[in-house]
Amino acid sequence: MRADQSLLEAFRLTTFPVGGSSSRTVQELKDVLEHVEGKLGSDTYGTGKLIEDFQAQMATYLGKESAVFFPSGTMAQQIALRIWCDQKKLPKVAYHPLCHLEIHEQDGLKELHHIEAHLLADKNRLIRLEDVVNMQEDIACLLLELPQRENGGQLPDYEELEKISAFCRDKGIKLHLDGARLFEITPYYQKSAAEICSLFDSVYISFYKGIGGIAGAILAGDSSFTEISKVWKRRHGGDLISLYPYILSSDYYFKQRVDKMVQYYTGAKELAGLINQCHGVTTIPTEPVSNMFHVHFDRSVEELEPLLISIYEETGIGLTSYLRSTGEKSCYYELSVGDRYAKLPMDKLREALQLLDTKMKMTANS
Amino acid sequence: MRADQSLLEAFRLTTFPVGGSSSRTVQELKDVLEHVEGKLGSDTYGTGKLIEDFQAQMATYLGKESAVFFPSGTMAQQIALRIWCDQKKLPKVAYHPLCHLEIHEQDGLKELHHIEAHLLADKNRLIRLEDVVNMQEDIACLLLELPQRENGGQLPDYEELEKISAFCRDKGIKLHLDGARLFEITPYYQKSAAEICSLFDSVYISFYKGIGGIAGAILAGDSSFTEISKVWKRRHGGDLISLYPYILSSDYYFKQRVDKMVQYYTGAKELAGLINQCHGVTTIPTEPVSNMFHVHFDRSVEELEPLLISIYEETGIGLTSYLRSTGEKSCYYELSVGDRYAKLPMDKLREALQLLDTKMKMTANS
Repeated sequence: MRADQSLLEAFRLTTFPVGGSSSRTVQELKDVLEHVEGKLGSDTYGTGKLIEDFQAQMATYLGKESAVFFPSGTMAQQIALRIWCDQKKLPKVAYHPLCHLEIHEQDGLKELHHIEAHLLADKNRLIRLEDVVNMQEDIACLLLELPQRENGGQLPDYEELEKISAFCRDKGIKLHLDGARLFEITPYYQKSAAEICSLFDSVYISFYKGIGGIAGAILAGDSSFTEISKVWKRRHGGDLISLYPYILSSDYYFKQRVDKMVQYYTGAKELAGLINQCHGVTTIPTEPVSNMFHVHFDRSVEELEPLLISIYEETGIGLTSYLRSTGEKSCYYELSVGDRYAKLPMDKLREALQLLDTKMKMTANS
Repeated sequence: MRADQSLLEAFRLTTFPVGGSSSRTVQELKDVLEHVEGKLGSDTYGTGKLIEDFQAQMATYLGKESAVFFPSGTMAQQIALRIWCDQKKLPKVAYHPLCHLEIHEQDGLKELHHIEAHLLADKNRLIRLEDVVNMQEDIACLLLELPQRENGGQLPDYEELEKISAFCRDKGIKLHLDGARLFEITPYYQKSAAEICSLFDSVYISFYKGIGGIAGAILAGDSSFTEISKVWKRRHGGDLISLYPYILSSDYYFKQRVDKMVQYYTGAKELAGLINQCHGVTTIPTEPVSNMFHVHFDRSVEELEPLLISIYEETGIGLTSYLRSTGEKSCYYELSVGDRYAKLPMDKLREALQLLDTKMKMTANS
């Protein structure tokens, strides 16, 4: 068995996994369908009450004129950028070097849409107003991801966000929100989703991050924008005859969890505080600004894994199922607080983190 | 209420709809999940036992080395053609003028992949060997749809198909099968799916036609081909974190219905025979070669609708929910035989068709 598999196996055997809301099993869909009448008719190629009602509900929630349900954010966001590029007849956008489109989509934006991406800021920090103001490139659209997932879920000050938005509007640059974790940042900003979205021309949100649904995304904006997005959805092969398994689960878990974002955020701050007390362990951000953060260790994956496995076995607490190396003597994992955190036995969690502290100290000079 | 809506409404109120296997409601998914354990883990971005097992099962069934599950055929087929065009460095394919890619996909092949399509044959007839042999264009791939859905579900002789396949292989032209209704043609050809697929380099099949699943498709071929298709699936936004609602339903209804294709085909021939006895009504093909055919009337939609509605109300038999105009005095609808046909009270069906015959005669000179 490979080392990373044994960590995954040990994690699966824990009684108290720390992150998320539930494991990704078929039970999640069963729970949804128990609350839906069998005679409810499917959506049909993007039409029908089932999909139209949910789209209208999300448009209202996001304060946008119109919203379209997509099978994935990958599809929704490429399409959003394509529409803005076509409108300006300029196939060029800007985004962060760790943007989902840059690192997780096999270059779909370039290969399918022939759109060039200008990278703003660098991997370790957020895009700042000055990056946007000093940009030499002419672009059709700027994409901002809130929070910036790949560097731990960081956020700019709200005032800076407003300034970036005003600058873009002034310069005729469309502003698109990668809001995969939009719900999760409303407590920190103390703003509604609609208030945040009002700074953007187009918005994508996801239903399987904090919401914990099965899959699916919404793309929202003016009707003139969303109407064109439906044409591109058809072209991408995303205009399925039935999207209802995803729509029903998005709706169900949205209702269940959207009001828990304060609880998740508070939990994340508490948990990061505890983790930061451990020797050789730090979180980014130090104090989370959403339900998520990254946990960094000054140990290699190979050194850390046996320590974690012994902690899991001794306490039943599962901190992570994987570790990602960031250097010869460093690695990290991502943690998102969901329903599970509130149900953890805190004495067990403290015991696990004390063990981690002790073991990190004991191996400090190894 | 618009006339076409009143036909739809009247159809919905009938006790005995003639075509298909069931109505598209959430119950179809509930039925699937009743047979699945809740603890079964989701597929994850195209990996995991759930998706890999089904893909392997379908590869075997189709006699191909490898198979990939896609959310839609639109996505799968564009990608298949793209791979063959890239391999030959020639962005040009050939297909029928009524090909799904030409008329139902908002020109995705052209807009996303910049592939030019050469149209073979004409709308009213199939692609023949001579069309392929005499083609002046240099192409990377020829797509054949079996059966040709948009002209009633017609098929070439199997010998002609073999000759086309041999010609393409000889000329270095890849042959792709649009097998959305592949299961449905195995009884007429008296060949297994794998035998038919052996004539093709790549094959797409659908799970919501004769199989009656919720959505989803398989693309099959050599491993070198399917591996690249996964990269394009990611680019298209089709590599969802969870495709299991579609995979489980495809698997469930495949097992339930794949062996019923002879029954559906026999039913279609019987039903077309009865329909062709009605005055002013003809089917294309005259004798079906699969479970589907088109029903043509020498009446306008406006003339025919009230006749159909009165027949529905009098007999409870629902022939169609819509009519599509083909001229000033002609219209048609598509009929696919599924589970429902075997459960119809035949006396009621005969009564309905006798009424249709009488009403068509009575209005013959109107």
